[in-house]
Amino acid sequence: MEEEQLQALLRDLDALRQRPDDPASIDRMRERVVAMMNPAAGAASRSKIKDMSAEVVDSNPYSRLMALQRMGVVENYERIRDYSIAIVGIGGVGSVAAEMLTRCGIGRLLLYDYDTVELANMNRLFFRPEQVGMTKTDAAVQTLSGINPDVVLESYSLNITTVKGFETFLASLKARSSHERSTGVDLVLSCVDNYEARMVVNQACNELGQTWMESGVSEDAVSGHIQLLVPGETACFACAPPLVVASRVDERTLKREGVCAASLPTTMGVVAGLLVQNALKYLLNFGQVSPYLGYNSLKDYFPTMEMRPNPQCSNPACVQRQKEYMDSKPARDAAAKAKMEAEASAASEGPVHQDNEWNISVVDDEDTASSSIRSTADVLPEGLVRELPAADLYPELPAAASSSAIDDDLEELQRQLDALNSS
Amino acid sequence: MEEEQLQALLRDLDALRQRPDDPASIDRMRERVVAMMNPAAGAASRSKIKDMSAEVVDSNPYSRLMALQRMGVVENYERIRDYSIAIVGIGGVGSVAAEMLTRCGIGRLLLYDYDTVELANMNRLFFRPEQVGMTKTDAAVQTLSGINPDVVLESYSLNITTVKGFETFLASLKARSSHERSTGVDLVLSCVDNYEARMVVNQACNELGQTWMESGVSEDAVSGHIQLLVPGETACFACAPPLVVASRVDERTLKREGVCAASLPTTMGVVAGLLVQNALKYLLNFGQVSPYLGYNSLKDYFPTMEMRPNPQCSNPACVQRQKEYMDSKPARDAAAKAKMEAEASAASEGPVHQDNEWNISVVDDEDTASSSIRSTADVLPEGLVRELPAADLYPELPAAASSSAIDDDLEELQRQLDALNSS
Repeated sequence: MEEEQLQALLRDLDALRQRPDDPASIDRMRERVVAMMNPAAGAASRSKIKDMSAEVVDSNPYSRLMALQRMGVVENYERIRDYSIAIVGIGGVGSVAAEMLTRCGIGRLLLYDYDTVELANMNRLFFRPEQVGMTKTDAAVQTLSGINPDVVLESYSLNITTVKGFETFLASLKARSSHERSTGVDLVLSCVDNYEARMVVNQACNELGQTWMESGVSEDAVSGHIQLLVPGETACFACAPPLVVASRVDERTLKREGVCAASLPTTMGVVAGLLVQNALKYLLNFGQVSPYLGYNSLKDYFPTMEMRPNPQCSNPACVQRQKEYMDSKPARDAAAKAKMEAEASAASEGPVHQDNEWNISVVDDEDTASSSIRSTADVLPEGLVRELPAADLYPELPAAASSSAIDDDLEELQRQLDALNSS
Repeated sequence: MEEEQLQALLRDLDALRQRPDDPASIDRMRERVVAMMNPAAGAASRSKIKDMSAEVVDSNPYSRLMALQRMGVVENYERIRDYSIAIVGIGGVGSVAAEMLTRCGIGRLLLYDYDTVELANMNRLFFRPEQVGMTKTDAAVQTLSGINPDVVLESYSLNITTVKGFETFLASLKARSSHERSTGVDLVLSCVDNYEARMVVNQACNELGQTWMESGVSEDAVSGHIQLLVPGETACFACAPPLVVASRVDERTLKREGVCAASLPTTMGVVAGLLVQNALKYLLNFGQVSPYLGYNSLKDYFPTMEMRPNPQCSNPACVQRQKEYMDSKPARDAAAKAKMEAEASAASEGPVHQDNEWNISVVDDEDTASSSIRSTADVLPEGLVRELPAADLYPELPAAASSSAIDDDLEELQRQLDALNSS
């Protein structure tokens, strides 16, 4: 209401600039100002919308999204309303991811963070100075509910690395489970900034068999990555011990010394965009879902790779999911065959989307005895600061000869990492 | 607080009645009204900060940016306060670019748009439903001034494709010129959504010898690009006629039919992030500035290329800048040699940043008689909808045999484009 009055005032002022000698318009403006001095309430946000419409009118917030159907990109965009996504960590990446999904009209968002908004966060998108002191989850709900009241928002101001926080985290992921899902959410996005929290998300998703996507930005603010993790099918966050160990040491050192990491709204905005784009492709079944995508901003270089699960992974839930995945291979093959035959018979019109949802090559069961990091361009996880060399300069990381040798090889791998860092 | 603002407005209105021809007072009133539209602007927003500090405290909005110095990424971050950037088009890409630069603490932002905020814009970042009806420039100033009061914001609600709008555009770019710059701004970012406006930005920048960066997102919302344009040194937007002609036809058709383009906050957020990252690298002298970077979200493929200027370019100002660039080659070479020698003598400590500011190979003067599009992976401009094939599948676009043959070759190139589209 007041917003409208202020806008009308602006229009009057602009008109006055064109025709300065108009005392009547000055009177009208005075009336508006006086009316505003009697406080009236009512935020001017839009009301809820029942069905997504493709109608091309200025007042339809979904017209440009529904146009993805006419453009042949997405078969059924409105399906997005059926999906729930959990975002862990509402910082520089998570908050922007949440805003993108909110504007896309996602069905339900679950937000987890234990931190409060500070002025030191203002160099990244989303939070505003007047929100300083609020919990990040409260501030996010405030902003997001104003942007799109159709999205169901659940916020959890808790630390998932505590025992109690972890219990609540697990329970919230399981809630509203339907027969089609292993949990109540369709995807978990990890947007946390430390090793410990990543391992906790990894643990929860391995336990629940929950597909998730991991994201991260380097301490020097100029590189980042996203990664898809499907328990049992791809490497989990604990599957590559030497890299992770190296990362942990580095990160703890950083924390002890209280070093302030650099950050940029650009790098974090790009990583959030790539992350949510990957999530949309995964949920709405278009394009190719990337198993891993790096971003080196200094050279605008975007490495990709795939990581198989490690049969000797230190995480028991991961090993269990791997076993289940192998056991279900005959059923998967049969389903894939039936689908292919059904499509071949209805082949007159080509499908809009790809059938290989994640662009992941199925692990050959005979090969899983040897853990390997298959990469055209390998990337260090968070905590190790180094610039990524160009793809063609990359030395191939040798695959561990046999999985039982991984621990013995740790020192050798560490030496290779050091060599990479100094190159 | 707001009460005071309203009373001040009343006083201004009363004063205006006495002296109707006082445009400055109208400007002042506009500012008051816009400030009130930002609910918390008066009370909780932060106050201005005189010097950027690297102190690691929660209350310092610049600590994570100044940390780029300690991380060895940027030599002098605070230099960002000396720079002015013009953003043309405050839509899905331009508004996010403006917010990123504002949060980075850029010195001055000039914002150009003629449009108003609609609910149909809500599927992209930045604008909020309660801003519907405001001009995009007013809404942007409202939001950005609340986020960072240290940034000087200038907004121009005008259409640069009109004669009057173009004059104001040119004049505003030239204002506050110092002896070090050809214009009053350090960089122009084009974030417009149509061919005509791009050609106008191209014309202005060619006339002024102004370096600019172009950006764009495809109508099907799943790909985009950024490009650096240095008048005389790189191809201008009019240098590649066949592609541009093809684009224009397509775009006009789209407009005539009133087709609603699809858009996604992810694609636009990524393009804005890549654009501003490139601008930061260019201004703060770190990493490699990309001459061209594409983004195909379906395959997470990021093609790059370089484009030389066309000596037969239809834009006379471009041809003039090319001549000047060639004429200044001896001076450039001498300066480069002197710099190299100076660095060799002070070589004990290596420089943090690259000396080749734009990562552009200098055009060999003997070769400029033949216009060529040098690309490892060529990309169609906006208006042509097709999916980008993988880099290694790309057929090389043959360089025009001689520049005078370009017009004759148009049909042949059109055939090749058609072949690319149907492949």
